[in-house]
Amino acid sequence: MRFTSEQRLDDGIIEREFTLGEIPGTLWTPGSAGSATPVPLILMAHNNGLPKAQPRLVARARQTAAYGYAVATIDAAGCGDRPRSAADEQARADLRRAMRAGEPVDEIFESFIGPLVEKAVPDWRSTLDALLALPEIGGPVGYSGWTAVGIHLAAVEPRIAAAGFFAGGYVPRAQREEARQVTVPLLFLLQWDDEGNPRQRALDLFDAFGSTEKTLHANLGGHVGTPWFEVADGGRFYDRHLK
Amino acid sequence: MRFTSEQRLDDGIIEREFTLGEIPGTLWTPGSAGSATPVPLILMAHNNGLPKAQPRLVARARQTAAYGYAVATIDAAGCGDRPRSAADEQARADLRRAMRAGEPVDEIFESFIGPLVEKAVPDWRSTLDALLALPEIGGPVGYSGWTAVGIHLAAVEPRIAAAGFFAGGYVPRAQREEARQVTVPLLFLLQWDDEGNPRQRALDLFDAFGSTEKTLHANLGGHVGTPWFEVADGGRFYDRHLK
Repeated sequence: MRFTSEQRLDDGIIEREFTLGEIPGTLWTPGSAGSATPVPLILMAHNNGLPKAQPRLVARARQTAAYGYAVATIDAAGCGDRPRSAADEQARADLRRAMRAGEPVDEIFESFIGPLVEKAVPDWRSTLDALLALPEIGGPVGYSGWTAVGIHLAAVEPRIAAAGFFAGGYVPRAQREEARQVTVPLLFLLQWDDEGNPRQRALDLFDAFGSTEKTLHANLGGHVGTPWFEVADGGRFYDRHLK
Repeated sequence: MRFTSEQRLDDGIIEREFTLGEIPGTLWTPGSAGSATPVPLILMAHNNGLPKAQPRLVARARQTAAYGYAVATIDAAGCGDRPRSAADEQARADLRRAMRAGEPVDEIFESFIGPLVEKAVPDWRSTLDALLALPEIGGPVGYSGWTAVGIHLAAVEPRIAAAGFFAGGYVPRAQREEARQVTVPLLFLLQWDDEGNPRQRALDLFDAFGSTEKTLHANLGGHVGTPWFEVADGGRFYDRHLK
């Protein structure tokens, strides 16, 4: 893991860009990170592999770091600004066309997002290895964001101790089936009027998780309308399980 | 309004019993209540008119008062330890028998809870008048607890500025229809595995409210299993709207 830039933000958060082999990432640590006590870590992924520099993700990461967490995000394989295969580009174009035409998108999502999730998770695990080797970061580890990646990661990675999912974004069949293997405490966010995500499908997914402690927060509004107080609620959820 | 007893609790909360005509009530105020600044008020009602001295209600009231609120509860007409009509007693007996036999209880609930809600709300409004005349209590006013009474109260009482509902307890048809008239910010608590309350009915009710700002919190577990962190979440919900 090689740090390529560092800046101290107004609120004392340190924001560092890094690379780990081909993986580009960003790490936010609280201003107190120079101190002797390592802080818990939250891995933060954006739905459907949007770029790690996307402003809403960055704002969420900075606010979460201010609660006393190291927060890391990456552009995993096929995500964000990473190179895409010709097949990926074709799938994205098909998807845009189908959505504009109001056609069903389930099968395109399945063939496009499914493999993206499978490819992304090993990058997240490599990043986790490297981050936990830093002296300023301790366990336990939380996850926040993209539901499909979070399900697969929590199912295969025993170091994930709590997870917050944004129930936006299509969840591939493989992860819907994997949900019962997720047993860590969960906070599941649902936008009640999410255009692209049938509400019943999200409620069924919440029901399917194997966790004995899981909480659903649903708010009125569309896909990107999650109220900002949910970031604070998320902070308290992680406080209960990671501190 | 006549205060009949007063005690200062360990955490500085002042707990006073009162009567207002035939209505017995309890008022909790924060330790700072002697100061010049009046605090906002939360009316707290227990599902289906359980007694105001019920330990879970009392614990919730004390914790909420500690967040800087005056909290009041009453035994409204037909509720708690107030006198009950022979018809009420008969309905309660019918209900217990039907539940033991696993028979449908909708119609018994309708004929029993429906009139109870209608009778209770005027007592809550009289109490509100008296409480707002106290110098230590200011507006705005929140409501917490019994969904059916809360719907009817919020629909007819413009001084209610925010409401937290416990989606336990049957909601009579009249209040299901009245839900669209409720337009204040809402926090709606749902127990995912509530034996006595079909989940879909609660989700439909959440959907029906007229409020443009409403949040659903669902947690695993049965009717009385609401986790205690929801009281803290409720405190922050009221902070956003009443302070």
